[in-house]
Amino acid sequence: MSSEAGQHGPLYLGIDGGGSKCRVVIVDAADRLLGEGLGGPANPLRGMKVATDSILTATQQALQAAGMTFNDMSRLVAGAGLAGVNMPQYFQLFSEWQHPFAEFHLTTDLHTACIGAHKGADGAVIIIGTGSCGLADVNGQCLDIGGHGFPYGDNGSGAWFGNQLVHHVLLDKDQIGMPTLMTTLLTESLGVSGTLDIVSQFMHATPTVFARYAPLVFTAAEQGDQVAAEIIQAGARHIDNIALRLLSLKPERLSLIGGLAYKVQPYLSAPVQALLAPAQAAPEFGAVWFARARQAKRQAAQLSVSNQ
Amino acid sequence: MSSEAGQHGPLYLGIDGGGSKCRVVIVDAADRLLGEGLGGPANPLRGMKVATDSILTATQQALQAAGMTFNDMSRLVAGAGLAGVNMPQYFQLFSEWQHPFAEFHLTTDLHTACIGAHKGADGAVIIIGTGSCGLADVNGQCLDIGGHGFPYGDNGSGAWFGNQLVHHVLLDKDQIGMPTLMTTLLTESLGVSGTLDIVSQFMHATPTVFARYAPLVFTAAEQGDQVAAEIIQAGARHIDNIALRLLSLKPERLSLIGGLAYKVQPYLSAPVQALLAPAQAAPEFGAVWFARARQAKRQAAQLSVSNQ
Repeated sequence: MSSEAGQHGPLYLGIDGGGSKCRVVIVDAADRLLGEGLGGPANPLRGMKVATDSILTATQQALQAAGMTFNDMSRLVAGAGLAGVNMPQYFQLFSEWQHPFAEFHLTTDLHTACIGAHKGADGAVIIIGTGSCGLADVNGQCLDIGGHGFPYGDNGSGAWFGNQLVHHVLLDKDQIGMPTLMTTLLTESLGVSGTLDIVSQFMHATPTVFARYAPLVFTAAEQGDQVAAEIIQAGARHIDNIALRLLSLKPERLSLIGGLAYKVQPYLSAPVQALLAPAQAAPEFGAVWFARARQAKRQAAQLSVSNQ
Repeated sequence: MSSEAGQHGPLYLGIDGGGSKCRVVIVDAADRLLGEGLGGPANPLRGMKVATDSILTATQQALQAAGMTFNDMSRLVAGAGLAGVNMPQYFQLFSEWQHPFAEFHLTTDLHTACIGAHKGADGAVIIIGTGSCGLADVNGQCLDIGGHGFPYGDNGSGAWFGNQLVHHVLLDKDQIGMPTLMTTLLTESLGVSGTLDIVSQFMHATPTVFARYAPLVFTAAEQGDQVAAEIIQAGARHIDNIALRLLSLKPERLSLIGGLAYKVQPYLSAPVQALLAPAQAAPEFGAVWFARARQAKRQAAQLSVSNQ
């Protein structure tokens, strides 16, 4: 590692692991950014091997960017906010991971997103990425909405928009739905136009694959396509319902985050729009602060034991 | 094999392979039923091994019922109508199967259903089972609608109803949807009531698993539940649209088949209801007649070659 990075005491790794990708940062004790990295999906529902490989790939990138080596991994105090670990069995599975870090503190991606968005203060967040979910954390009370997974949940998310796109394109091809510009956009994007060729592309599609095509719905709506506009209204209505439910806890700030947030935001209702506040930091920084808080708590507990 | 079964010349195996199960019959040249069998899903999208195992399990049951042995499998002229083989790659894969039969003639489950429903005459069918699809076969013209797969297609099917059920129950649990009786019915049926416990049951659910819970939507609607009634109206509207499109070929008969057909039928529109006619025989018999027609064609072609 570079001598500069070594001079600043403890090093923190912040991990934001979603359904499609995983972002990590390495920062020093003064929150100075030393390196960043990007990996594949880190959601344990997609398999522990995929998830841990994504985290390790992204971490190695970040170490390299920080001028450090693979061996420095064991110096990192890691905080991870991961999609899927709201399920007790996946939380358990990840807690048992033989990780290569000095410490590994685990919570949900929603939780670290909320810590990041409000710099650890009370507030609410809605993530609109591959999936969709919301969390309000006010006066120690936590409310967790949605994020149950695709296809039975996650309406208004990238996976949901992509699935709606394919659904309406197939209705159009079968001539049992309204003609839609989305058919042209999807067939151009795929480079195939036959119904069976389109189906072949989505037959075993993961939420990530569906989410990749979500922006085409917005492109079509921007060009006046009525079918696309109705899909967006339905998706935005779901996000709006999550927001209204979170606001029952009276958070002072509500932030929208995730890859599709800026696309969906203009379609939300006026009362929800009025309460939106930009996220103050990215979820991976929320993960750093989560790790630091947990580390401090653990150290305080150890101190209290050794003082008895 | 029993001497009786051996006396009637060629023996036919009719296979109806859907997304959840596979039904087979063994009949003699005079269409006398010798034995029946039931196996798991025979849709190659679920894997060739699962599909061929399901067919072989069901065939062995039917052989046993007919008083025949495993070795008699090589005497059967088989006709198979399988979900999924409308996709060229799966048709190819199944065509290359090293099957244990005397002959193996392959087509889609829709096609054999149509042959069965109208005893080989022109007509149209809609299958409402784990998936949903329709076919009209009139004056040599064939129109094939839907059946593209779940979750982007197959609206109005068992998988779709089950998915809608879970979706609306989770909205209810999160208090962002209308309260619905379906929540009580599903939690009673699963024996768990926590949101995460429900999600755990459906996280990796196949279309077959979703389809298993479809009847609860109808139970709720019958007891006056408004959310369930709206789901059924949306599903029935999709089936109606398939029907109206098929009727553009002016078939004289339209039959609804599949496990959910009798549940959905009362909700279809009056013009579609007026054209419904009961299926005259089950799809597995359609598969027998398909095999016999193909066998006759092949024999005629061989005769014509040997006469030249």
